[in-house]
Amino acid sequence: MFFLDKWIVILTAVCSALALLFAVLTAKRVMGFSEGTERMQKISASIRKGANAYLGRQYRIVLIFFGAMFVILGVMAFAKLLTPYVPFAFLTGGFFSGLSGFIGMKIATAANARTANACQEGLNRGLRVAFSAGSVMGFTVVGLGLLDISIWLFLLKFVFKLDNADITSAMLTFGMGASSMALFARVGGGIFTKAADVGADLVGKVEVGIPEDDPRNPAVIADNVGDNVGDVAGMGADLYESYVGSIISACALGVAAFSADFKAMALPLMIAAIGVICSIFGTFFVRTKEGATQKQLLGALSRGTNFSAILIALVSFPLVWFVLDKEWTFYIAILSGLIAGVLIGQSTEYFTSDSYKPTRKLAASSETGAATIIISGLSVGMISTLLPILIVAVCVLVAYFISGGGNDPSRGLYGIALAAVGMLSTLGITLATDAYGPVADNAGGIAEMAGLDKSVRERTDALDSLGNTTAATGKGFAIGSAALTALALMASYINKVGSIEGGAAKLANLNINNPTVLIGLFIGACLPFVFAALTMQSVGRAAQSVVVEVRRQFKEIVGLMDGKADADYAKCVDLCTRASLREMVLPTIVAIAAPIIVGIVLGSAGVVGMLAGATASGFLMAVFMSNSGGAWDNAKKYIESGVHGGKGSDNHKAAVVGDTVGDPFKDTSGPSINILIKLLSMVSIVFAAVVVKFSIL
Amino acid sequence: MFFLDKWIVILTAVCSALALLFAVLTAKRVMGFSEGTERMQKISASIRKGANAYLGRQYRIVLIFFGAMFVILGVMAFAKLLTPYVPFAFLTGGFFSGLSGFIGMKIATAANARTANACQEGLNRGLRVAFSAGSVMGFTVVGLGLLDISIWLFLLKFVFKLDNADITSAMLTFGMGASSMALFARVGGGIFTKAADVGADLVGKVEVGIPEDDPRNPAVIADNVGDNVGDVAGMGADLYESYVGSIISACALGVAAFSADFKAMALPLMIAAIGVICSIFGTFFVRTKEGATQKQLLGALSRGTNFSAILIALVSFPLVWFVLDKEWTFYIAILSGLIAGVLIGQSTEYFTSDSYKPTRKLAASSETGAATIIISGLSVGMISTLLPILIVAVCVLVAYFISGGGNDPSRGLYGIALAAVGMLSTLGITLATDAYGPVADNAGGIAEMAGLDKSVRERTDALDSLGNTTAATGKGFAIGSAALTALALMASYINKVGSIEGGAAKLANLNINNPTVLIGLFIGACLPFVFAALTMQSVGRAAQSVVVEVRRQFKEIVGLMDGKADADYAKCVDLCTRASLREMVLPTIVAIAAPIIVGIVLGSAGVVGMLAGATASGFLMAVFMSNSGGAWDNAKKYIESGVHGGKGSDNHKAAVVGDTVGDPFKDTSGPSINILIKLLSMVSIVFAAVVVKFSIL
Repeated sequence: MFFLDKWIVILTAVCSALALLFAVLTAKRVMGFSEGTERMQKISASIRKGANAYLGRQYRIVLIFFGAMFVILGVMAFAKLLTPYVPFAFLTGGFFSGLSGFIGMKIATAANARTANACQEGLNRGLRVAFSAGSVMGFTVVGLGLLDISIWLFLLKFVFKLDNADITSAMLTFGMGASSMALFARVGGGIFTKAADVGADLVGKVEVGIPEDDPRNPAVIADNVGDNVGDVAGMGADLYESYVGSIISACALGVAAFSADFKAMALPLMIAAIGVICSIFGTFFVRTKEGATQKQLLGALSRGTNFSAILIALVSFPLVWFVLDKEWTFYIAILSGLIAGVLIGQSTEYFTSDSYKPTRKLAASSETGAATIIISGLSVGMISTLLPILIVAVCVLVAYFISGGGNDPSRGLYGIALAAVGMLSTLGITLATDAYGPVADNAGGIAEMAGLDKSVRERTDALDSLGNTTAATGKGFAIGSAALTALALMASYINKVGSIEGGAAKLANLNINNPTVLIGLFIGACLPFVFAALTMQSVGRAAQSVVVEVRRQFKEIVGLMDGKADADYAKCVDLCTRASLREMVLPTIVAIAAPIIVGIVLGSAGVVGMLAGATASGFLMAVFMSNSGGAWDNAKKYIESGVHGGKGSDNHKAAVVGDTVGDPFKDTSGPSINILIKLLSMVSIVFAAVVVKFSIL
Repeated sequence: MFFLDKWIVILTAVCSALALLFAVLTAKRVMGFSEGTERMQKISASIRKGANAYLGRQYRIVLIFFGAMFVILGVMAFAKLLTPYVPFAFLTGGFFSGLSGFIGMKIATAANARTANACQEGLNRGLRVAFSAGSVMGFTVVGLGLLDISIWLFLLKFVFKLDNADITSAMLTFGMGASSMALFARVGGGIFTKAADVGADLVGKVEVGIPEDDPRNPAVIADNVGDNVGDVAGMGADLYESYVGSIISACALGVAAFSADFKAMALPLMIAAIGVICSIFGTFFVRTKEGATQKQLLGALSRGTNFSAILIALVSFPLVWFVLDKEWTFYIAILSGLIAGVLIGQSTEYFTSDSYKPTRKLAASSETGAATIIISGLSVGMISTLLPILIVAVCVLVAYFISGGGNDPSRGLYGIALAAVGMLSTLGITLATDAYGPVADNAGGIAEMAGLDKSVRERTDALDSLGNTTAATGKGFAIGSAALTALALMASYINKVGSIEGGAAKLANLNINNPTVLIGLFIGACLPFVFAALTMQSVGRAAQSVVVEVRRQFKEIVGLMDGKADADYAKCVDLCTRASLREMVLPTIVAIAAPIIVGIVLGSAGVVGMLAGATASGFLMAVFMSNSGGAWDNAKKYIESGVHGGKGSDNHKAAVVGDTVGDPFKDTSGPSINILIKLLSMVSIVFAAVVVKFSIL
């Protein structure tokens, strides 16, 4: 397949361009909608301003970090511990990851008032605007991902003329840039959004007794800014990173399995490229009729993702057949990833949607107060880890053994990496359904603040409630793909160490009962717990400062409660910005320092143990925290729909406690853990040579 | 050292007899104290009656389980999949484990009124009675443990004349009996105690607004019964199992490391035996002066345990020198375990005692309500996993490498097992300080119900509050030793499988990146999450039924609130009994079935992965849940001492929510996980041959 080389790069570039073009066209269409009344425009502008200000300051801090890392990596490259491409790859990875989040945030803050306005005309129209905004984000992420890959592929292969093994080895390292950026975005944004949310709710809803999104609440703009910088910008950076990481690690493992034959690199690129086209088709199936029920709305979104998934399943068979010379068994690996992604999403939906028993029972446990709803919510989250782990287990085993891992482990590992690519091939559209949630949430806020008709708020609520489920589904999908990608990266790490002089000896005993591996495993398993604790504490501290400020404003601003004076929204936004930027540093440093320290003390075998432990426990913690949080949120919404005493009842108050606990669970700590486990692998890969050279054990 | 053989058995038997004699004498002394007024006697009698009734019914259910398992193991022995001793060893393990719990419960229920009465005379006297009762339990556990071991050693070595490898292999299996019994006791008792506690608090304290332990509360007796069947009987069975398991696995690994030389079996037995004597000495140092502060009380208890630990450290050096022919490096292994145990206890104390920052900050977070105290409590628990895991890591690495594991892994593994024995050598006295807590708690209840002077309740409260810290310390110690024991058992499992025909081939690839191992790891890591969820849900369901019953009694019994009519205590006890016995079955079945199913599907390599995953994540979950629970409990008590608004304030109400969530965390799910991880290893060992023969992969 000699002729393939150039065409693959071209195909990837073309599909990248198509995705970006589709994003631009969709963005134009979104911008064509009216932003509504002057008041709505004004609110939307404040949210936009706050989000821009936050991101601007975040990027400045991140820039310092990237500058410092660039110097460190440069020195390492100079000392021949790294190839000279690494520092630059690191920068581009971070740049595109950040850009994904930035563009997503831009469109989301442009679409919020438009969605609210469209909801005045009808539910379907509202759904279209919000979903289109989500699509812009989804296709920007995949478009930029493929762009980054094709630029580097072109440079390394055709300009610098490296061999395939060196290409993938260099490209793996831009994952570290993307992961670092993603972690900053997720943690910083996550702390911002939840500090604002918790702060606004605690004083506004609980103490003062005004409704959610009431314009008198000084933290209300900050809350809406938070949805954009956390749930949109953070998520964009996160999934950019998963997407690129899975493709590149599949390329790297393919090169290892097929003695550096380019065809093994070509397959994941082509699957990803084709996935873009299939996802674009899928978006056209997302529409609903007026007065649609919750279930029908969900059906509309599922139709889009399912159609894309089926299309990819159909198209990738001939692709594998053609590219890999009839070795169709790898197709099963891809398919198993695709199916696993869908199943994990469904399991998440079952545990977090109020259409099913777990969340309904959770709502019922509010009858005996806040303590019981907390206990029940924690146990719902914990038990919900079982199905996803079994799904991933079956997927990994099928992908490994069907690809011939029983005889040749390297082929089996390639199979696992292909499963990850398969799972993420629908990312364009799954991310669209996921990112649409915060837009709908914002729209609801604007409807409330602008005093629109009650029916509008009902429609945005319907969209938002659905958004909770799709967000939960999206999180299940993000963590599932993160686990597969992390496993693939772990294999890449082992290959990488093996290729370093003296590295193979360090990996001579990877037995799980080797104490070095085992202790690495213990420490790795502990990292998600520590990380979750740090991020939750950060939210707690930041929220505390918001509470104090909001209380102050209610006390000091005369006429605020009567609507005669305006709250100082900017102050709260600024407070959240400063608090979250301050708080995001420590968790990130922990994530970057841990693999280096573990490596220096325990050596490369200990690092492998650490990666395995962190992946296992991180997967569990992320699913647990995301699902507990999603279930609490929807249990509260379910009660608000009128059961168990409805809004304002004691049961509702208990449910609000659950929801508040769930906030940092599902929007800060849980999703950050996805990134943590991949960043740990990425840092390990980049610093592999240092660890081999300087480790104690 | 030929002559050692007989003398070791005799020494073990003698020390066992000494421990039991000391327990009997101490029990006599406890019984010599007065039970106080007629009302106190009556209350104590009802508690005793309830606890007896519960244990009676529990043992009946357990008997059915043991009967069934005996038949299954008998059939397996008949099919030559097991040696014929296994079914009998299984029974004795279960019997002695159950007996440990039973005797502990007997003395605790006898000592509660006596402690309350002694507190009328002074704090020191109260401490003496409660601590003596704890000592009875502690020395019964170690006495029975050594008794069981010496009987079997005598039978297998001198009657059946087996060789050393066969002896340890057979003895390992009585651990499964002990673990199964312990799991029933911990889960059943844990559900009972927390269902009663949560139920009593939710209606009594929160809804009706009467104080804790108010005699008008229909669930008050059930609550006090619960302290005995859960915290005492459950814990006794649990630690019996750790103690015996660690000694036997050290013997087994010693035999593997020293080519079946008896001296390697002799060492752990002698350390344990000497530990008993040192612990007895330690108990004489536990006394305090009148009007002692919280810190002085804690100091009194620490003095006892520290003295014992130092004594053991001194004595075991010549022991190792003599028994192992001057191979003193193993002494360092023992010492590292001993020190690790103390350090884990101190770390636990730091995170859960209100003398330190974490719990004080937790109490302060009640200022912003229930949600923030929950978030903070969860993060305290999560971050508190870091230190213990680092302590265990250092302990394992030191024990392994100092014992020569670098050159000969089998010696290193023996070193790890010796560390576990070293940690548990002080069990007699650490368990005494641990078991004294529930006695003091009960004494407080009786003081309240019998209407004793306020100063008495203050004294029992001081003892009880200290009990929370020692209980948390004890739990840290229990989980630390469980982790080391589980690692030793994992090594024993690998040896066991290796010794089975065709077994070695199944373990050819234990590499952590072998997907079979890795998937086993994932599933193993998931088990503690599932287990915690199941047990928490059980507590929730059982508590719910108690709430309904207590509400009914308040509504239907005329004059109950005015103290003119008596509550129907027996009904609540009966309800808790039935609920907890019903609920304890599923978690236990999960724990026993999981290793068999994983083994059949993934093979022996998958089982090893599962054990590693379960140990890592189980350790983390157990520490997290125990410490969160302990911190919430003490934060509440700290607020009750008058800070942050004191009793009855909104902050206090928020803290009560935290405490209620913490109840199943620290007394049901957390401690059960210790047993889970050991039971998984034990079941794996017993069913090793079945798995080798019938596994799919």
